[in-house]
Amino acid sequence: MNEIRILKTCGKARAGELSTQHGVIKTPVLCPVGTQGSVKTLTPRDVRDVGMNMILANTYHLYLRPGIPTIEKLGGLHKFMNWDGAILTDSGGYQLYSLSKLRQINDEGVMFQSHIDGSRHEFTPELAIKYQESLGSDIIMVLDECIDHNESRERVHAAMVRTHQWAERCLKAHHRPGQALYAIVQGGLFPDLRNQSAEYLTKLEFDGFALGGLSIGEPKQVTFDITEQITALLPLDKPRYLMGVGAPEDVVECVARGIDIFDCAMPTRVARNGALYTRAGRVDIENAIYSQQAGPIDNTCHCYTCSNFSAAYLHHLFRSKELLAYRLATIHNLAFMSNLVQDVRNSILGGTFDTFRNQFLSTYKTTDEQTRISQKQKWFEARQRESTD
Amino acid sequence: MNEIRILKTCGKARAGELSTQHGVIKTPVLCPVGTQGSVKTLTPRDVRDVGMNMILANTYHLYLRPGIPTIEKLGGLHKFMNWDGAILTDSGGYQLYSLSKLRQINDEGVMFQSHIDGSRHEFTPELAIKYQESLGSDIIMVLDECIDHNESRERVHAAMVRTHQWAERCLKAHHRPGQALYAIVQGGLFPDLRNQSAEYLTKLEFDGFALGGLSIGEPKQVTFDITEQITALLPLDKPRYLMGVGAPEDVVECVARGIDIFDCAMPTRVARNGALYTRAGRVDIENAIYSQQAGPIDNTCHCYTCSNFSAAYLHHLFRSKELLAYRLATIHNLAFMSNLVQDVRNSILGGTFDTFRNQFLSTYKTTDEQTRISQKQKWFEARQRESTD
Repeated sequence: MNEIRILKTCGKARAGELSTQHGVIKTPVLCPVGTQGSVKTLTPRDVRDVGMNMILANTYHLYLRPGIPTIEKLGGLHKFMNWDGAILTDSGGYQLYSLSKLRQINDEGVMFQSHIDGSRHEFTPELAIKYQESLGSDIIMVLDECIDHNESRERVHAAMVRTHQWAERCLKAHHRPGQALYAIVQGGLFPDLRNQSAEYLTKLEFDGFALGGLSIGEPKQVTFDITEQITALLPLDKPRYLMGVGAPEDVVECVARGIDIFDCAMPTRVARNGALYTRAGRVDIENAIYSQQAGPIDNTCHCYTCSNFSAAYLHHLFRSKELLAYRLATIHNLAFMSNLVQDVRNSILGGTFDTFRNQFLSTYKTTDEQTRISQKQKWFEARQRESTD
Repeated sequence: MNEIRILKTCGKARAGELSTQHGVIKTPVLCPVGTQGSVKTLTPRDVRDVGMNMILANTYHLYLRPGIPTIEKLGGLHKFMNWDGAILTDSGGYQLYSLSKLRQINDEGVMFQSHIDGSRHEFTPELAIKYQESLGSDIIMVLDECIDHNESRERVHAAMVRTHQWAERCLKAHHRPGQALYAIVQGGLFPDLRNQSAEYLTKLEFDGFALGGLSIGEPKQVTFDITEQITALLPLDKPRYLMGVGAPEDVVECVARGIDIFDCAMPTRVARNGALYTRAGRVDIENAIYSQQAGPIDNTCHCYTCSNFSAAYLHHLFRSKELLAYRLATIHNLAFMSNLVQDVRNSILGGTFDTFRNQFLSTYKTTDEQTRISQKQKWFEARQRESTD
């Protein structure tokens, strides 16, 4: 249980099988995000249909609503949301940093106010483990201290040291059999701190290792460089998880640097803004050029959306703000990511990953900053009718 | 084609089969509303799965967006929305009255401004038919003039006379083979005008007869009385359609008065506000009493939602404003209506409709005015994130 079996490598890229209490997960794998116990707009059946077998949920959100005791009483998170695939939960470390109000942090833990109602709460390493044990996730994360990239080296160092101490406390507090516990390598954008962190944590008996504090505003090349640097220090026989990364091109680039597991809200979030993935890049379905397109958004895609609906119909649904739009777009984007990750895996197994990578990156037009900013604007507007993830 | 075969009656209640170009529809039938070419939150597969085989769409909305030529170019409304069941379209008469701005009406037709962008348009009886022919609906409606209940008898009379003239023009303009055209009986709340209208229209060769201008604010007993009065004047061998009615208790009461076809946005609209149907009445899933309920919202329901999710999970999704909530609730309410209409039909076929009716009405607690008002408030709020239906 909780072991990764590496079937084949291509350079640093790995194709494997990760055993969990809810099935064997083929790696590389991207986990869609079900922050509040729901992959937004989708039923568990939809998630399986797009080819996804492991999702991510957030302890922080579920702790605040509906509350851990409620989920425990109702049989755990799998039963609560009727999902029999694997679940990975984040400990709350990142959400305490990005969402909660009036966060006060010391060696013992984190005091914070709920982003929902301002009520006061405390998270400690031991509580983060206890909550995740109650949720019954297949893979759980240590509580870590996340901080901004522009903090001083001294502060980044202090947060890293605290993250290490907390990691040890988490390891000691963790007892649920069959459940995997992953450590989180921190150290900001300082290569030497990152090295220290990896070296410290890999001496401890964790089931896997994650890279935290990346993809939060730094240039992509920095994300890639740190990823490459750290995976070189991680044991070959343990899974490596890059937290919060999941743009198509980033998945390909980071598999090339030795990552097995990804999670990202992007495919589902941008879907709800009408940004749909194709092998040529992301397209805006609300663009007038789609208003008369009788074919699907992507001729090569076999997802439920592309098999059943024209681009013109999707365009109409988005323009009309029909709720079905968000579901159909989410299905398409997750199917795209599922196919991409599968193609990546097959190319590793077939020994042709480098060719695949070059080909994909040469045809996939990445979204430029301009579009990202306009997407962000739309996303903020969308947030008014949606909840946080 | 377009004929109703009455299999059995129980008093005035009728169980039949209505032939359309897209299948035989068992009657009584309730059409869920897909105003803009989508039953809100559901795929066509979902609609079939809840047991619905005929939907209503609105010519007015589809004319404004995406435009009739677009839908025609893409192969008609069935193909556009990928729905192979039957479609009934409203002519736009009611939406011109309730939604459009600066409506100017004369004997020729209606000039109006779009509720979307203020652009100017014209509907005439001939155009309303032309548009519905282009959509390719199975059942289409004449253009009628709708007016408020509190208008003078003189104005109601004038609108009725105009509706009759327009009905004749629609009949003359209609050529699409296989497509049924229904007239709309008007006359406001004046019993003698209603009689005049029924007598006038039934002399013409329509495929069916609808009752318009009801359930728009008048007391329920008035709706029932006018329905009973008019169905007595309608030919037995033609379908009768009560427009815009569809609360569970109203469907039972109006089947008892001889109605075959209903359409109503209520089951889907209230679902999105968390109001879920049970045989004991409507419940508010956001109520704290559901926060820990491990069983489904309705133990006797076999819909996808009740088969797979606890009331507590639905409660959580609604409280968290997760988009999945709206779909699961919509599935449940439509399955409830589908089952109700099926039970009504079976009781007619079995000769026990009166017993069923009494039993249903004695256990189904209707929603009191207080709740309706609070629902209405929530609905207005919900409209901010949704489009019109």
